[in-house]
Order: sequence, then C-alpha cells, then structure tokens
Amino acid sequence: MKIVVIGAGGDVGRFVADELAREGKHEVIRVGRTRGDHQVDIARDDSVSALFKQIGTVDAIVVAAGNVILAPIEEMTTADFHRGLQDKLLGQVRVALIGQHYLSDGGSITLTSGVAVEDPIAQGANAAASNAGIEGFVRAAACDFHRGIRINAVSPTVLIESMDRFGPFFPGYEGVPAAMVAKAYRRSVEGVQSGRVYRVGH
Amino acid sequence: MKIVVIGAGGDVGRFVADELAREGKHEVIRVGRTRGDHQVDIARDDSVSALFKQIGTVDAIVVAAGNVILAPIEEMTTADFHRGLQDKLLGQVRVALIGQHYLSDGGSITLTSGVAVEDPIAQGANAAASNAGIEGFVRAAACDFHRGIRINAVSPTVLIESMDRFGPFFPGYEGVPAAMVAKAYRRSVEGVQSGRVYRVGH
Repeated sequence: MKIVVIGAGGDVGRFVADELAREGKHEVIRVGRTRGDHQVDIARDDSVSALFKQIGTVDAIVVAAGNVILAPIEEMTTADFHRGLQDKLLGQVRVALIGQHYLSDGGSITLTSGVAVEDPIAQGANAAASNAGIEGFVRAAACDFHRGIRINAVSPTVLIESMDRFGPFFPGYEGVPAAMVAKAYRRSVEGVQSGRVYRVGH
Repeated sequence: MKIVVIGAGGDVGRFVADELAREGKHEVIRVGRTRGDHQVDIARDDSVSALFKQIGTVDAIVVAAGNVILAPIEEMTTADFHRGLQDKLLGQVRVALIGQHYLSDGGSITLTSGVAVEDPIAQGANAAASNAGIEGFVRAAACDFHRGIRINAVSPTVLIESMDRFGPFFPGYEGVPAAMVAKAYRRSVEGVQSGRVYRVGH
C-alpha cells in the first residue's frame, strides 16, 4: 500500500510512520508542517490540494496533526474556541474531504481524536468538542462513503512520551507508549472495519 | 426562575418556551432571530453580548437554534463543513461562553444536539460532527464550571412536526412530538444534573 502520514514529525505520527514502514510492506510518505518528505498546512485547502496533487493516488491516509486549546471555561472566548476547532477538527476533516478524491477504491482514512471526549479533563471543553466532532464525523462519514472507502479514528490517552508537557492536565493517568498507540493505526489501515473509534489506554 | 430561550420561534424552541411558561412558575424570555421579545444573531459575539446586557442576569439559558449542513460526503467541501460548524456548534457554544457571565450562581445552560451522533443518517457527516461537538463541549464544560453552574444538552430524534421537511433523511424513524422533547429541557432546567445528554425518542 501507498500510505501518506500527515503529522509524521509529531509524537504520535512518527511512531505510526515507523510502525507502518517496519516490515517493508508499504510505501510510507511522511508529511509534516515543516519537515518530512512533503510539507502541508492542514489549515489551508490549497496546501492540502497541492500535497495530494504532488503525491497522487494513495491507498491510505493517516492524520495525526492538529492542536486543541486548553483554557478554563470562565476565561474561554469564542475566538479561542474557534481557533481550536479550526486547527484540529476542521484541519483533519479538510484532509479527509480533499484526500477522499485521491484514494484508491477500498482505501482508508484514519483520523486522530483524544482522551478528553468521554473522560473530561480540566480546561478541556474545547478539546472535548474538537475530538468529539472528529468521532462524530468518522461515524457518519463511514456510512456515506462509496467505492469501499473506510474511515476510522484513533483516540489515544496521554502518551508517556508527552508526559512532560501534558502530564499536569492528566493527574493519575497512567499514559501509554506511543508505539502501542501506533498499532491502532495499523489496525485501521490494514483492517476491514469502518466508522470505528479505537481507544488506546482508556 | 428567569429563563431565556434562544430559538423560541423554532420547531423545538416554541414548545420549550411554552412548557417552561405553562405553570406560571418562571419568567420566560423568548428570543428569536427576527421575532420574539428580543432578537439575536448567535453567529456574532456582539449580538449575543448585547442580548445579555439588555436582559441582565438570568437563572437558566436554553439554546434551541443553529442549523447543520446536509450533503453527500463526496460533494462536501471544507467551506460547507465550516459553515455548518459555525452555525450550530460555534453558535451554541458562543451563547454558553458569553452567557455564563450573566448566569446567577447555580444557574444552568441547556444546549441542543441531535439524533445523528450515534445513529448516522445519509449526508450526515457535518450534522454528526456538529452535534457530537456540542455533546463533548457539554460533558467537559460541566466539569469545569464553578459557582454551581450546570450544563446539559437535549438530543431529540426527528420531530413529528418536522417530518415534512426532514422525513426523507430519516427513513423508518418514528419521530417524537415536540411537546415530549420540550419536557427534557425542563428536566435540565429544573433538575440538578450536569454534563448529561438527554436523548428523546432514540
């Protein structure tokens, strides 16, 4: 399979790219904001379109990119909330909506949600909304695609590798190694299921 | 209680306003886009702020407003998706984020989700994302509010009253009377729970 991994320089994405490339079965194209085989800004339609025009038809699209806003609800503004939605939810949906037209029949899309949906954290209202939005999109889009196209999401708990940055937001959370999270992406890419949210570590 | 109902001219909102006003226990302020006691455009911060400055402190905020985009996934553009997010998800969140500062201690916010989250319909990827986003926001914001502020959502299935417009999107759905949906809002407003999504008819 020819697989494009967007966010391949990130904490999750580099493990996903390594996991998918490991046995030499797949051609893995690593895409980052500033590094990788190609660069993309998932906040812009023209940048995402240009990426797919360059790389052509693929069999699987993986997106592990986009940030949410963490802020106390009393201080959160509409502008903050909007920025968070744009970055993670709309960014990932943009890749799915544009990328679908470059997928081979039977191809797959795998997006990235997060732990805060059913297990809220402090300052997590935007994170929960963005991640829940991704999960809702995946479940409904799975029923609407033709040509055998599948779509799933992976929802990791906090990564052990990210504990220095995000640990304080996840008191008492055990965390999972990114290498274990990466396996859920392989399950989505090489499996047959669609409309699933694979939860890892929670 | 002094209760503001935003979207009080809509299929759901007018039954909610009637239900809450019925026994004369509450002062119900009906707000619409063009009709009602006051008008508001929930797509604009300044319009929402002006509304709350006019009506002052309230004990409960109900939002039954905002539209989603229904479109086949293959034809859906980022611009369509963005428009749907802005209208329903960000519109309702805007009312919650601005309105919280005008709520009395122990006050409540009740938002409106919809059936498509866990039970996807054709052309429903934006509806599912928007409604799931509202539910995620509610669950997380409930944990983050202080001053005893509560927040819930009501998720109605298709209304019997809306079957002429939306029936074709809901084949085999029985539908519920709007008057029954309205009771769930009363449950949220007069109850003690927070972070709940009250599903009606599904």
